[in-house]
Amino acid sequence: MSETGTIYGVGLGPGAADLMSVRADRLVRGAQNVAFFRKAGRAGQARRIVDGLLCEDAREIAMEYPVTTEIPVSDPRYNACLSEFYTDCTARLRGLTDAGQDVIVLCEGDPFFYGSFMHLYTRLKDDVPIEVVPGITGMSAAWTATGQPITWGDDVLTVLMGTLDAATLAAQMAAADAFVVMKLGRTLDKVRNALRSCGRYDAAWLIEYAAMPDQTVQRLCETEGRPAPYFSIVVVHGNGRRP
Amino acid sequence: MSETGTIYGVGLGPGAADLMSVRADRLVRGAQNVAFFRKAGRAGQARRIVDGLLCEDAREIAMEYPVTTEIPVSDPRYNACLSEFYTDCTARLRGLTDAGQDVIVLCEGDPFFYGSFMHLYTRLKDDVPIEVVPGITGMSAAWTATGQPITWGDDVLTVLMGTLDAATLAAQMAAADAFVVMKLGRTLDKVRNALRSCGRYDAAWLIEYAAMPDQTVQRLCETEGRPAPYFSIVVVHGNGRRP
Repeated sequence: MSETGTIYGVGLGPGAADLMSVRADRLVRGAQNVAFFRKAGRAGQARRIVDGLLCEDAREIAMEYPVTTEIPVSDPRYNACLSEFYTDCTARLRGLTDAGQDVIVLCEGDPFFYGSFMHLYTRLKDDVPIEVVPGITGMSAAWTATGQPITWGDDVLTVLMGTLDAATLAAQMAAADAFVVMKLGRTLDKVRNALRSCGRYDAAWLIEYAAMPDQTVQRLCETEGRPAPYFSIVVVHGNGRRP
Repeated sequence: MSETGTIYGVGLGPGAADLMSVRADRLVRGAQNVAFFRKAGRAGQARRIVDGLLCEDAREIAMEYPVTTEIPVSDPRYNACLSEFYTDCTARLRGLTDAGQDVIVLCEGDPFFYGSFMHLYTRLKDDVPIEVVPGITGMSAAWTATGQPITWGDDVLTVLMGTLDAATLAAQMAAADAFVVMKLGRTLDKVRNALRSCGRYDAAWLIEYAAMPDQTVQRLCETEGRPAPYFSIVVVHGNGRRP
């Protein structure tokens, strides 16, 4: 009987291949089994980051989300549908590790920071050896792109999801020195309103496709009336103590 | 007259050399001028990360803090003393860039996330070409080391400095789903009290030297009475929505 293979959750960073860590780069280039999530019918952002890096004979395991925004998150069918999906993915990966093969799972950003890999991790960690390689987050690329440090001195930094309700967004923004809002797209108008209600709208930046070829950096107030892609991040910088 | 050199603020990540990005690794290995901060009399953590990677003939520019914890941050002399120090450092780097040479500045973690490099950046950015390479943060390495994802679903994540006052710490902790506390050391007892006051003490983890050779991961409540080193991070995980 062969020894159980290891699963590597590999943080790829924000989007540019050379912002992957040296450890991630080595794992990606040497991998025989490469799994990644994607929306059905798309190439997938994680897979795109490693274009040209994979072994010629690497087996690719595309895990296609059954839903993304077609069912509201609040609908019980959303959770049931995704839960079944993650169980299926787990079984596919177990088929390989039970046969003694290692598998890398490509993760955008950092695997343990709002990532889909976490749902596989919790289902597998008691049965299969798993190693997680942290990565540069999309938010680090976003604030770097603005050309301004995000936090100074004792600044409080808060990370918010655009999917939170408007009142929570506004209260958290008011209590933070610096903040970042992720999971934008159709939530952007709600985020604009929350920013207005706490007087931070004019200080907000919108970064689209941070560290990717189509990166843009604009003041949020100059993008009124335009939709934002999923890979958008809103950044408000802190103004804390500095010598 | 030679063209002005470029300054690169290079995020080295949390401590392991192979958690540096491929871009950072390439810049470090090719650099002729390598500047870094350190406490007087110490090797310096940023310099230690690149041990064995520098060119043999690289010029090393050690920038030694005139104070770290000898003067309280609240004392006006603290700011005056550091301000003069950063002005001196700026002049040293300008001496090289004015002569047409590039300089890399080694930065632990991510340069724009509570980093000393920011103080050089603001003083230089209008006069010298500067490029910033984001890095994996120490907090990413810390939560990865705990073997538990930091955030799920819509969890609010807040980043706090141990140097904040006790009331602010407690209020911010109570309002967050997940949080991270940095700048520990002599502030740790205050942080323990804030955690107790909001009922999160038993959920807190203490990670010392994340991603470094001496890494330790413990429940904070099991470290009572012991001091923590500066390179310590407290992590409390979120428990948000998951399918």
